[in-house]
Amino acid sequence: MIYFRSDYSQGAHPDVLSAIVSTNLEHTDGYGLDPHCERAGAMIKELIGDESVSVHFMVGGTPCNVTFAASVLRPYQSVIAARTGHIYFHETGALEGTGHRIVTVEAENGKLTPALIDRALEEYQDEHTPEPGLVYISQPTELGTIYQKDELETLYAKCQEKGLLLYIDGARLGSALTCRQNDASIRDIARCCDAFYIGGTKNGALLGEALIIKKGLDDHFRFMIKRQCGMLAKGRLIGVQFEALLDGGENSLYYRLAAKANELADILRDGLSARGIPFVGASCTNQLFPILPAGVVRELEKEFFFYEWSPEKDGLIPIRLVTAWGTERSDIDAFLTRLDELLQ
Amino acid sequence: MIYFRSDYSQGAHPDVLSAIVSTNLEHTDGYGLDPHCERAGAMIKELIGDESVSVHFMVGGTPCNVTFAASVLRPYQSVIAARTGHIYFHETGALEGTGHRIVTVEAENGKLTPALIDRALEEYQDEHTPEPGLVYISQPTELGTIYQKDELETLYAKCQEKGLLLYIDGARLGSALTCRQNDASIRDIARCCDAFYIGGTKNGALLGEALIIKKGLDDHFRFMIKRQCGMLAKGRLIGVQFEALLDGGENSLYYRLAAKANELADILRDGLSARGIPFVGASCTNQLFPILPAGVVRELEKEFFFYEWSPEKDGLIPIRLVTAWGTERSDIDAFLTRLDELLQ
Amino acid sequence: MIYFRSDYSQGAHPDVLSAIVSTNLEHTDGYGLDPHCERAGAMIKELIGDESVSVHFMVGGTPCNVTFAASVLRPYQSVIAARTGHIYFHETGALEGTGHRIVTVEAENGKLTPALIDRALEEYQDEHTPEPGLVYISQPTELGTIYQKDELETLYAKCQEKGLLLYIDGARLGSALTCRQNDASIRDIARCCDAFYIGGTKNGALLGEALIIKKGLDDHFRFMIKRQCGMLAKGRLIGVQFEALLDGGENSLYYRLAAKANELADILRDGLSARGIPFVGASCTNQLFPILPAGVVRELEKEFFFYEWSPEKDGLIPIRLVTAWGTERSDIDAFLTRLDELLQ
Amino acid sequence: MIYFRSDYSQGAHPDVLSAIVSTNLEHTDGYGLDPHCERAGAMIKELIGDESVSVHFMVGGTPCNVTFAASVLRPYQSVIAARTGHIYFHETGALEGTGHRIVTVEAENGKLTPALIDRALEEYQDEHTPEPGLVYISQPTELGTIYQKDELETLYAKCQEKGLLLYIDGARLGSALTCRQNDASIRDIARCCDAFYIGGTKNGALLGEALIIKKGLDDHFRFMIKRQCGMLAKGRLIGVQFEALLDGGENSLYYRLAAKANELADILRDGLSARGIPFVGASCTNQLFPILPAGVVRELEKEFFFYEWSPEKDGLIPIRLVTAWGTERSDIDAFLTRLDELLQ
Repeated sequence: MIYFRSDYSQGAHPDVLSAIVSTNLEHTDGYGLDPHCERAGAMIKELIGDESVSVHFMVGGTPCNVTFAASVLRPYQSVIAARTGHIYFHETGALEGTGHRIVTVEAENGKLTPALIDRALEEYQDEHTPEPGLVYISQPTELGTIYQKDELETLYAKCQEKGLLLYIDGARLGSALTCRQNDASIRDIARCCDAFYIGGTKNGALLGEALIIKKGLDDHFRFMIKRQCGMLAKGRLIGVQFEALLDGGENSLYYRLAAKANELADILRDGLSARGIPFVGASCTNQLFPILPAGVVRELEKEFFFYEWSPEKDGLIPIRLVTAWGTERSDIDAFLTRLDELLQ
Repeated sequence: MIYFRSDYSQGAHPDVLSAIVSTNLEHTDGYGLDPHCERAGAMIKELIGDESVSVHFMVGGTPCNVTFAASVLRPYQSVIAARTGHIYFHETGALEGTGHRIVTVEAENGKLTPALIDRALEEYQDEHTPEPGLVYISQPTELGTIYQKDELETLYAKCQEKGLLLYIDGARLGSALTCRQNDASIRDIARCCDAFYIGGTKNGALLGEALIIKKGLDDHFRFMIKRQCGMLAKGRLIGVQFEALLDGGENSLYYRLAAKANELADILRDGLSARGIPFVGASCTNQLFPILPAGVVRELEKEFFFYEWSPEKDGLIPIRLVTAWGTERSDIDAFLTRLDELLQ
Repeated sequence: MIYFRSDYSQGAHPDVLSAIVSTNLEHTDGYGLDPHCERAGAMIKELIGDESVSVHFMVGGTPCNVTFAASVLRPYQSVIAARTGHIYFHETGALEGTGHRIVTVEAENGKLTPALIDRALEEYQDEHTPEPGLVYISQPTELGTIYQKDELETLYAKCQEKGLLLYIDGARLGSALTCRQNDASIRDIARCCDAFYIGGTKNGALLGEALIIKKGLDDHFRFMIKRQCGMLAKGRLIGVQFEALLDGGENSLYYRLAAKANELADILRDGLSARGIPFVGASCTNQLFPILPAGVVRELEKEFFFYEWSPEKDGLIPIRLVTAWGTERSDIDAFLTRLDELLQ
Repeated sequence: MIYFRSDYSQGAHPDVLSAIVSTNLEHTDGYGLDPHCERAGAMIKELIGDESVSVHFMVGGTPCNVTFAASVLRPYQSVIAARTGHIYFHETGALEGTGHRIVTVEAENGKLTPALIDRALEEYQDEHTPEPGLVYISQPTELGTIYQKDELETLYAKCQEKGLLLYIDGARLGSALTCRQNDASIRDIARCCDAFYIGGTKNGALLGEALIIKKGLDDHFRFMIKRQCGMLAKGRLIGVQFEALLDGGENSLYYRLAAKANELADILRDGLSARGIPFVGASCTNQLFPILPAGVVRELEKEFFFYEWSPEKDGLIPIRLVTAWGTERSDIDAFLTRLDELLQ
């Protein structure tokens, strides 16, 4: 079985695992208060060119999203997000579990725009409706598309004009940063939001994400982590991995792993396009959403492991194919070869 | 200033107030554990022809909606509602404040349908998305439209098929019950849902609603009322009013007050229609949403008090006019007369 | 049956009810945005000598306690209270329902002291424990005792030193203000805390409390009221009652009703003491907690309605007797006479 | 610096780490739906002799405690715990964050008893107080003491009699199971509660705990894990470790590591006792709470890393010393030697 199921089907990249192994018997203090987390935090501050932020190493993406929002919002405030956004679509209402509404908008290609923020704000009128306090986006989006630098700038300007915080979910941030169409560096990302995270789980780590919070928005955040059940006893485990991932900045393993996944995705995408296969959305990152005949999908599923993205309609099924640092060129070739056989 | 602002701009109907006055010096036990609440509850059970329900007298509509949902849902469950529904649109996220999502659907005329429920259910896939547990509708809807009996039956059948509870917000239930187009009696309402409330505040009471819960869904509900801050020390105050309102069943004050408000609304509606004024939606109850030229609205506002329902667009403003038991025929005439002057 | 059950067993004082009746047919805007609430608010500001506060009219005491705490606390913060405090003991965990802990201390006579606050703070060490943010007391306490002026000053100074807000539950504030032993005026109360409420329900109103919040702690409070399900459509109902209750300031109905209840309580207390009956605690207000032989209690219950305060122990039962504005001197006499018969 | 700070200061035991390394490049499905979690779950079911339970692999202890309680309790229900219990004392109010109260009792040696449960239940009277629904204990307790088999049986019988669920926090369960004084096997543990967890983090794992839930109490639990932000993408990471830890049942690494830590703790305890050092509580597991002169503590802190357990009093400071699988006999000797020097 060849996996295009997700970018978290394997363990850690071997270099990351080596770092875990080589530091394993060190004694450190717990809960992220250790030299590894401190060094990894310093590396991130340097990478984004901002010493004033605070960095927290978190166990997963949902904890990042929910803990930050719950920390900065007053109880009557809401979050604006695309209806396809992960915080709405794949987190089992964890955000609402902290008492806040997600105001959803239908967003083409999964991307919010200033006009969509205005539309969401129209629902807010007075004390009888929740007040939007935070805008949630992800880079790339759930549909694999990315925000260009000017789009991020415009969006952030809109948020600031309206008194909204902007949060960027970076579960696959590496994939956006190293995507051919991308023109927004990590410094642009950091500049154009109030908080974001650098996703480790989907790009080489066993687990862990690095949450970066702008100065002034971090008050008592470690209390919030613990209160939201997200504090890891052996917190250095995540610090150690980010040290390994980010060593070298924009030439680091983090960038190289994401670039490799993107390159393989591009080959697969080009191969599918060359065969006339249409796609859902305009992903340019490591997730592809080709639409295939149902019969072909059923056959492919015998050899390849992937998600059906939405139910069969008119004999067609959109599927999701994901590449990762561990994907091999031969996996791509095998898929296209089998597809050719099935399409004949 | 003539009020078409709401159906809660005056105090209680004089007959209701008389009941409060005449029982004022009685001593009773608190928290709704008194003979008046008991009698009013018995009257309701008789009216709906179901002795097995439980009846709770609540301080307001939002407490009814939120307390019931919070009581019957598990933490990971959500509520399905029209985006225009009161629980979504005018309760400041009180439902989400208890940790549950509202899954919204765009609903024509504010009315849910089995097809819209299916659409909402499509979002629910597995443990990564909240599981819908309750469907919220109101009778009439926020837009003044009503569900016909067969629509309620179909909707409830759909809910039961899908394992969903159906809840009916009856803030203006009287207006639906006495509307000319209506064919659903209160027994039909009671039969076609798992819980509903008979709204007092907007139909003659100082405050208070009667929440009716089907057998088996009432477990520890009084604990929930108190935990949600909704238990009234002098609870009999609401029981006393419902005794006065419901005495006589379908010939009671409750029905007569609502019928009067509807009649005046019909006169106003017919008058506006006769003048070629278009409406938002197809309300047949005591709320009207005429669309008037902005200049006319500005002038009317000097003499009449009402809501602008949505922002000016293309020189037009939809407004909301509400009639109530205290509205006078002369109020209607004055409005139409002034309108004629302004439209000349 | 003679009621010593509570101070909310009757409706409103006739003068308060008259105010409701005489304003009943006025049309006003809803949700407390009406001239009556405005005037009542102005009267309160004058009474406490502070124009800078904000005043909100609330449906009950629990909504006051919970809405204020939920509004000012960050999610990881807790409330310090006596284990006997109403917020802990009689609100079904409503405060915890908003996500906050109540840190309880055993408090003699139900009264917090600076030393007890220190004890509660000892539990707070770092990010692994909730940070106390608010101290809850009531005046009088659940046991009917009161804080003297210097005690309030000392407590508030302690709170300010420790970065804690101080909140005073005034469900029976009138009883404290008019108690013979009291030396703290309502201006002292207002000066020695960050928020408090003047309880109407237990001193002549049908329902309603006036919550007073110091400047700077009121941000978006109306959103919080609505989000916590506490906003009353016909909000002027509470404003009207407070106008009637507070007209005349310290000579107003509010003070006179409470004073009457206290006087009758004093007569009853003296009568019981003269008969050698011991009490739980040292109440000096309108609640008494005499400890009587179980057999006597059983007999008294046939003619008088009151709470057994705690379970029978060693043949004795502490009961609670409450006087109110509607209690008659003859009720007291009847109780003492029957007691004499039973004690023979 | 020699660490007696905690049993989570190092990474994983080398054998556990080997298992992670050797399975690292396997592709599996995510979120704990993989063969490793399945096998580890089966091993646990065999170990406890109950096929009917469900096993969930969780990221940490607080997520276990909070997710289970939030899943089984109705909103108005509370948890009973010792005031020293981890759920109260070291989880930043995470449980209250889900809306439930912790009713605390003062418990000698950190241990609940049937009598203490009765005391907690006394606070519960009716709908004005939260209803206790769950009893939380840990084995061993926060103070290192353990429940004997008959104590667990009696406690569980009491819970069942009172309609309470019993939950056992097993963060250090290995230490209890292998303690010389212990007579309760893991089958006894499983038999005497409704849910418990086998702690990995503090006994050889990088992270992870195995939560075991009795049949019928597991409904939609995976939804709850996700909703509480506790679902790990690479969930097999925890399954892999428990396979390594539990292979061999009662002769497994899990038992051997805990036994080693206990043996070293015993040596240290005996050494301290021999020197006349008193202890806080009667710990018989891998945590010791000796009380030392403040001056000695200050000197020891220069070479050894440990917690001061409570503030200095009368010149004495209680400290916490923890042994773990990675503690060396030479660490113990060094400590006692240095202590002798300081005590001279």
